[in-house]
Amino acid sequence: MTTPPAGTAGPLVAPGPAATRGPVRVVGTGLLGASVGLALRGLGIDVVLEDPSRVTVLLARDLGAGRLAEPDDAPPALVVVAAPPDVTGDVVAAELTAHPEAVVTDVASVKGAVLHALREHGADLARYVGSHPMAGSERSGPTAARPDLFVGRPWVVVGTPESAPDAVLAVRNLATDLGATPLTLGADAHDAAVALVSHVPQVAASLVAARLRDADPAALDLAGQGLRDVTRIAAGDPALWTSILAANAPAVLPVLRELARDLGAVVDALEEAGSAGTHQAVPDGALGTLAATIAAGNAGVARIPGKHGGARRVYDVVTVLVPDRPGELARLLTDMGNAGINLEELSLDHAPTQPVGLAAISVLPGLGETLEAELTSRGWRVAG
Amino acid sequence: MTTPPAGTAGPLVAPGPAATRGPVRVVGTGLLGASVGLALRGLGIDVVLEDPSRVTVLLARDLGAGRLAEPDDAPPALVVVAAPPDVTGDVVAAELTAHPEAVVTDVASVKGAVLHALREHGADLARYVGSHPMAGSERSGPTAARPDLFVGRPWVVVGTPESAPDAVLAVRNLATDLGATPLTLGADAHDAAVALVSHVPQVAASLVAARLRDADPAALDLAGQGLRDVTRIAAGDPALWTSILAANAPAVLPVLRELARDLGAVVDALEEAGSAGTHQAVPDGALGTLAATIAAGNAGVARIPGKHGGARRVYDVVTVLVPDRPGELARLLTDMGNAGINLEELSLDHAPTQPVGLAAISVLPGLGETLEAELTSRGWRVAG
Repeated sequence: MTTPPAGTAGPLVAPGPAATRGPVRVVGTGLLGASVGLALRGLGIDVVLEDPSRVTVLLARDLGAGRLAEPDDAPPALVVVAAPPDVTGDVVAAELTAHPEAVVTDVASVKGAVLHALREHGADLARYVGSHPMAGSERSGPTAARPDLFVGRPWVVVGTPESAPDAVLAVRNLATDLGATPLTLGADAHDAAVALVSHVPQVAASLVAARLRDADPAALDLAGQGLRDVTRIAAGDPALWTSILAANAPAVLPVLRELARDLGAVVDALEEAGSAGTHQAVPDGALGTLAATIAAGNAGVARIPGKHGGARRVYDVVTVLVPDRPGELARLLTDMGNAGINLEELSLDHAPTQPVGLAAISVLPGLGETLEAELTSRGWRVAG
Repeated sequence: MTTPPAGTAGPLVAPGPAATRGPVRVVGTGLLGASVGLALRGLGIDVVLEDPSRVTVLLARDLGAGRLAEPDDAPPALVVVAAPPDVTGDVVAAELTAHPEAVVTDVASVKGAVLHALREHGADLARYVGSHPMAGSERSGPTAARPDLFVGRPWVVVGTPESAPDAVLAVRNLATDLGATPLTLGADAHDAAVALVSHVPQVAASLVAARLRDADPAALDLAGQGLRDVTRIAAGDPALWTSILAANAPAVLPVLRELARDLGAVVDALEEAGSAGTHQAVPDGALGTLAATIAAGNAGVARIPGKHGGARRVYDVVTVLVPDRPGELARLLTDMGNAGINLEELSLDHAPTQPVGLAAISVLPGLGETLEAELTSRGWRVAG
């Protein structure tokens, strides 16, 4: 990890002394594995790199993620397997056998399938603790690796009843040393959680986006921030997501079946509404189903934790017109800072044909009117 | 419309002389109607306000959106109906009858149902031109109204074969005078478009969010920006959305049926994958379905127009650690401005337990490395 420069985020993320003991063996030196290597090397820990691709491992070495193995190496204290989900179980089993003193972890985004494979192998589960850092990038491979990739991210630690306490501690220490926040979950709970907060939303976003393939370009001109938000993650990689969804099928399926049941109820309600001809004549049952669907969404979205892990807040939102020139948004936020008001969230929208942006500024509840007055007095145009 | 202060977005959105002829009668003085009134009054146009609620119309008047009708008023040249979707058709029909010289428009978000009601009424369609400004707010009522509500937004103008050219022109002029960008679509095309870009995404977001109602709090701790984006609009108002979905059932239904069909295919593929036991043994057909689903989403999301109506760009994205203190983000963007690099998009993510944010800065393709070097040289920490 690089030394934080003075005056920036440094003090907030500076690690203490590393708790992780080396040598650490990293198997798979793509984005995640090479990032682990870079971060550990920054902490002065000996890192040995391994990858089935000779080019990938040499690239990771040259980028500073670690060194290649040598014949008289000390045995690794910790092995981090950062392989694709569908081969992770086999690789972990092989590492447990090859390094009988080492704690072995992996970083695959699905945990039950890995554990299942290990049990089939009859692996030594006392020394295996799975993990899942909630970090990534739209890029891949060692050249996209970063020592700071895990800073501030949740890192799920997945022990089993067989896990030795020291092994669990070693993996928690790894997460903490890399700047992440360790969270403890069982394999089934982890897989159910990521199905709900990641895999099912991915499927939904992809299905909505797929409907746009044959859309009239004029229809797409009406696209607003809502559509952009719902479909942003639909740009994800098909090969990666196929692997994740297939590996987590047992956890994703029940949620998708519930989604399909609810969708069927909406379709039935709209068929009733449609056959009733005019809106006024729609039977109450159909309207009730539609209202219940939206209300259920209200209740669900309200449970997503807000910033810093607290309860979700309903912020005051002030929308400001910002000319699309370098420095204008900075000037806006400088004016906010001068007014002593902290930004909670910011989203930008753009006028379809004009060189002006709409900045929606979220601030703590109760501060909206103050912010509006402050910005207006500084010459900004506040929009609806 | 207020006079733009010097040095801000003024020159970019300053209106020319108004083309709209008064008096303009606004029927329904909630958020949209009162905003129309405020904007027209700012252009010096006589506005007469009407609302079934005496309180609402007096509030709109006191806020400066117009005046109440008087016995010897000149007949209105233009009537703007801003009523709930389910009563808009009846109100427009009554206004066409009461003001036989006036052009009448409405601002409801569904157009086919209004037209259907008007045809049933035998209304004079030469003087009716529907419209739909793509603007709104999470707040409602006249107190949320803004003269700038429509600035930079698309405003769909929906003529019929019966519409007189002068009537179409009057509605286009209204949109332009209010700072919006008029777009022309037929009623069916409009309704199909909003089904695709607004109503179906709303249903999908609500259904995904509804699955979170009974989620383990530990699962919600793993929520990232993806889930937040997919479910943001699930916070929408149940009564409003029930009305919109029911009124646009004919256009929403076919899209939802396609969505349900695709979802069924994903469920079938995951059942095959699940019953195959381990991932390696999943039949190719199931994996092919999953990959095709994600790839179709890729193709769809790529069609959403980017900033300023151009083709969607793939931006370079640089992620920077920003301390959560007033002024830090401003300082970051000031440094960007000093480097001469324009911000295209900005999204903020927050570490779950640390007072530091991650700002994902999108810049034009090719500028990412330059930005990264500039920011690093200014002491910022660039993350993965």
